[in-house]
Amino acid sequence: MSEKNKEFKLEEIIEKVIKFRDERNWEKFHNPKNLSISISIEANELLEHFQWKDLKESKEYAEKNKSKISSEIADIIIYLLYLCHDLNINLADSIDKKIKENNSKYPVSKSKGKSLKYNQLK
Amino acid sequence: MSEKNKEFKLEEIIEKVIKFRDERNWEKFHNPKNLSISISIEANELLEHFQWKDLKESKEYAEKNKSKISSEIADIIIYLLYLCHDLNINLADSIDKKIKENNSKYPVSKSKGKSLKYNQLK
Amino acid sequence: MSEKNKEFKLEEIIEKVIKFRDERNWEKFHNPKNLSISISIEANELLEHFQWKDLKESKEYAEKNKSKISSEIADIIIYLLYLCHDLNINLADSIDKKIKENNSKYPVSKSKGKSLKYNQLK
Amino acid sequence: MSEKNKEFKLEEIIEKVIKFRDERNWEKFHNPKNLSISISIEANELLEHFQWKDLKESKEYAEKNKSKISSEIADIIIYLLYLCHDLNINLADSIDKKIKENNSKYPVSKSKGKSLKYNQLK
Repeated sequence: MSEKNKEFKLEEIIEKVIKFRDERNWEKFHNPKNLSISISIEANELLEHFQWKDLKESKEYAEKNKSKISSEIADIIIYLLYLCHDLNINLADSIDKKIKENNSKYPVSKSKGKSLKYNQLK
Repeated sequence: MSEKNKEFKLEEIIEKVIKFRDERNWEKFHNPKNLSISISIEANELLEHFQWKDLKESKEYAEKNKSKISSEIADIIIYLLYLCHDLNINLADSIDKKIKENNSKYPVSKSKGKSLKYNQLK
Repeated sequence: MSEKNKEFKLEEIIEKVIKFRDERNWEKFHNPKNLSISISIEANELLEHFQWKDLKESKEYAEKNKSKISSEIADIIIYLLYLCHDLNINLADSIDKKIKENNSKYPVSKSKGKSLKYNQLK
Repeated sequence: MSEKNKEFKLEEIIEKVIKFRDERNWEKFHNPKNLSISISIEANELLEHFQWKDLKESKEYAEKNKSKISSEIADIIIYLLYLCHDLNINLADSIDKKIKENNSKYPVSKSKGKSLKYNQLK
């Protein structure tokens, strides 16, 4: 992870994307349904880069095309930030809660090295 | 946006999800293709909440079910963070670059109040 | 439904898309994972047409842009036909089975006029 | 392809799914935006089966779990049929047109054995 991620200021970034939206009067289009659609569309634009590649090739491709991949990731994240902002969601808390849930659902002893879903673990 | 987003520490969060993954030896499943697939799958689980709702209902639903929606958002974000980590992507820079690009593609004078794609703006 | 749908010959259509693939030696890319990815990508290209429209506008737009929408639908269907062919799936039987299942899961008396999922029906 | 695909009657199948919908008074939910969302959601349920598998494993898995995969495919196709019906789209014509377009975009001489997009072919 790059050093500069230490200086990531979530609130400043959210202010920037909200300013961008307000200047264009686009808030009216940004309900949770439309934002979720947009996240899915952008996720599939990211996925399209890897459509026909095998898993190993996808790593090589992503490293060679980091700028394109970063750009697709930014598209997804920005829509997620609008959704978090509009619903007043505390992102750090959400992620912390999710990690705790996943720790319960996927105990290390049962899930180590396996890609099974939690309801298939023995 | 909640006050607590001021204290969002990206690097600490990334450390937590990487620790979770390392404990389970799951890095081997996490190439860019599989992570992008996972982002699309989780995005569609978010979208499913709004499948049959109209746009206004989606807002009411999301506010009443904030915990469920936060949980879906966390699923998407976590996969995005793995991808950023693995490709050594600086997230703040990516978003800044994207906002600049979108400022060029969508000048306020042409795009205000319109949902057209940049290549359809007059 | 247009009259010509009476003359829809599934087997002939499958032969055409298989011929197209064989001429290009593309079968090697067509495993179920890659085909499913492709279906999701094409589905999201269809969805993009309606990204910012409200539900009523989406109907008007689709009617005015029938040729574009048909083209997106064809993209999705063709990948589905490859998958059915490669897995030797009888499509009519699959659909019949699904309709029967849905008849059980969604009894008319409980689901009439409601968009609830079967596990939320009372 | 199974012999029974010779007897696939598109119009009869469409009549069945329309009857199912009419009995439940669900047409009101079925605008092109909602149907496209549903196609994406179901496509991602199909994709989830292959989320962590490599390309070869996906083939073995699909063959062993043909009934589950058929069921996911039926979900996608049914929503596509609603969309075709509602927009009065002739499916055989759409597919024929698409195959012709793809024949032009992907000439055998340039695309044989390659997974490149048409605008990257030399």
